[in-house]
Amino acid sequence: MPTSADTAPPKGLSYADSGVDLDTYERFIDTIGSVVRRTHGPRVLANEGGFAGLFRLDFNEKLFKRNFKDPVMVACCDGVGTKVKLAAQMGRFDTLGLDLVAMSINDLIVQGAEPLFFLDYIAVPKVDKAMLLDLVKGVAKGCELSGCALLGGETAEMPGVYPDGEFDMGGFAVGVVELAKATNPLRVQPGDIVLGLGSSGVHSNGYSLVRAVVDRAGLDLNAIDPELDPTRTIGEVLLTPTRIYAESIVSMLRAYKVKKVVSAMAHITGGGLAQNLERSLPSGVDAVLDRTKWEPLPVFEFLRKHGDIDADEMWRVFNMGIGYVLVVRPTFADAVARRLERTGEVVHRLGRISRGKGRVRFKR
Amino acid sequence: MPTSADTAPPKGLSYADSGVDLDTYERFIDTIGSVVRRTHGPRVLANEGGFAGLFRLDFNEKLFKRNFKDPVMVACCDGVGTKVKLAAQMGRFDTLGLDLVAMSINDLIVQGAEPLFFLDYIAVPKVDKAMLLDLVKGVAKGCELSGCALLGGETAEMPGVYPDGEFDMGGFAVGVVELAKATNPLRVQPGDIVLGLGSSGVHSNGYSLVRAVVDRAGLDLNAIDPELDPTRTIGEVLLTPTRIYAESIVSMLRAYKVKKVVSAMAHITGGGLAQNLERSLPSGVDAVLDRTKWEPLPVFEFLRKHGDIDADEMWRVFNMGIGYVLVVRPTFADAVARRLERTGEVVHRLGRISRGKGRVRFKR
Repeated sequence: MPTSADTAPPKGLSYADSGVDLDTYERFIDTIGSVVRRTHGPRVLANEGGFAGLFRLDFNEKLFKRNFKDPVMVACCDGVGTKVKLAAQMGRFDTLGLDLVAMSINDLIVQGAEPLFFLDYIAVPKVDKAMLLDLVKGVAKGCELSGCALLGGETAEMPGVYPDGEFDMGGFAVGVVELAKATNPLRVQPGDIVLGLGSSGVHSNGYSLVRAVVDRAGLDLNAIDPELDPTRTIGEVLLTPTRIYAESIVSMLRAYKVKKVVSAMAHITGGGLAQNLERSLPSGVDAVLDRTKWEPLPVFEFLRKHGDIDADEMWRVFNMGIGYVLVVRPTFADAVARRLERTGEVVHRLGRISRGKGRVRFKR
Repeated sequence: MPTSADTAPPKGLSYADSGVDLDTYERFIDTIGSVVRRTHGPRVLANEGGFAGLFRLDFNEKLFKRNFKDPVMVACCDGVGTKVKLAAQMGRFDTLGLDLVAMSINDLIVQGAEPLFFLDYIAVPKVDKAMLLDLVKGVAKGCELSGCALLGGETAEMPGVYPDGEFDMGGFAVGVVELAKATNPLRVQPGDIVLGLGSSGVHSNGYSLVRAVVDRAGLDLNAIDPELDPTRTIGEVLLTPTRIYAESIVSMLRAYKVKKVVSAMAHITGGGLAQNLERSLPSGVDAVLDRTKWEPLPVFEFLRKHGDIDADEMWRVFNMGIGYVLVVRPTFADAVARRLERTGEVVHRLGRISRGKGRVRFKR
């Protein structure tokens, strides 16, 4: 015999029934407000309830007037790849935001741009406030380190698209450069010096391969491997946030107001040192690099060994210890290197530019 | 006895083994180049191999000089929610790009901004060139309809994060407005007229509920329901792209160079008409709307009926036929309405502004 519950008319559908809870979502949005506002300088205009973020381009304040003559907006977009899965495996969500900002901001500064603002897209199967707050705090910290405002973002609750425990992030950065100061590969000339800035680790490329190595070798992410790092677990080493080069690069470029000392730059991501530096070379020159000039971080030998990965494949997928490259006029190479070292960079003199065909060649 | 295959040393890992094929990926990037470049006007600077997109803010060409006095950059970010799942169910990927652009661009123009450029983040478990090309073509078409450049984007191959058949998209839009011309809720005054622009359907909010209705009622997406639409399948009606209001709104705002005829605007998304319009109201006024002034599109009654959804919930989740709202100075209301109708909008006179508490009220 049916119970009263069985005979009751079926309850109508609501948005909450379908997996989306607008109330929880709105409380989360309130919570992140203060985290986000901390990144806002005087050029971010108040716009409560607004549909978009507002960022004033020029400084028109009396005391701090500075207007662009012919401003070029520079914009790019990136994610952090499957590093999200490694973070989820470890239950650590406070570092990925730094990776997200780094991936776009390091691309932006290659063009000679000064970062202005950043927006993030985070998609989750279900709002988990603690996890989302860690993600957004990481993004805000990355913005502070880059000297840009976290101007907006979207947190999308997408039940069914992402399985439980999975999520994804996309980041979007906008900067500005005076047209006359934008980098241009055509400036690169034979004799220019190639400087490389040390990476902090794997950064945010090649993580499908990293995870395949972990699986294949049956590595315990919570274990310590003394050869890799005696003070951090394997998981912590692999999750090291991507280095953000904005502060060093922007302040160095500002120091040379008139002279064009930097011919070109490159952010080393998927494709490795050769492929990314080639993007910044004109067709008439080669970059001839000497791989004995620096020692790849231990994490790369660790991955090669446990994954039995071919050496060429390593160089094609990973940064191998160099996260950012500058091509510098020879008379300024030492001064630029010293200036970058003073702002905390590890600078390697990788090689020099010669006549060629737009390729990166490694000395034997 | 082991065969020779068994005794061969295990093959080392490669990036392709881990699910990421850089070669397929690069061929796809080449393919979309021409689609993307079609959206580029003269303000997009050539930057082959570049790490970011370059967009010149001012028109400094001799014949077409136009510089901003105090430019405010306007930026926002959005996705299309679980409408991606409905598209995947139907195997139709050419419309979602329009939705993605619409969601951000319609937010942008609320601030009085002119759209400049857009970037997209698309994440898939595996590169499927035909599907990705359809997605990017849709984004490019949306950019053309919005008068903005598709300045860049990222296609992320994320095996393991997205199950087979799932994917996600995030969109980022940047525009510019003269500081003196940016909309400001404080302009709204009692007596102002509230105009509503017709939506094309559900747009891109509430799709978790839409899909729950489809599941609950066992609807066949490939069937035709004559009451809903005698010419399109249920799935096609539900997948109708979000209307982009940029062209109408930007050309109307340009027509009033000096007079501030528009007090405020709102893009009606999740939260519905009331919640979104309230974001644009100052605390001292109410918007009093008359729901008899327009007929919600048939798709909303269809969803309500099949999901047995409470009427208030319908108004809280869906746009109910009004996709965009303008609050207009009373003496200009007719002229603004006629101008919007000439650019293809269906304009409803929803009500007017009275003294109040920053709320939207519906006339009984």
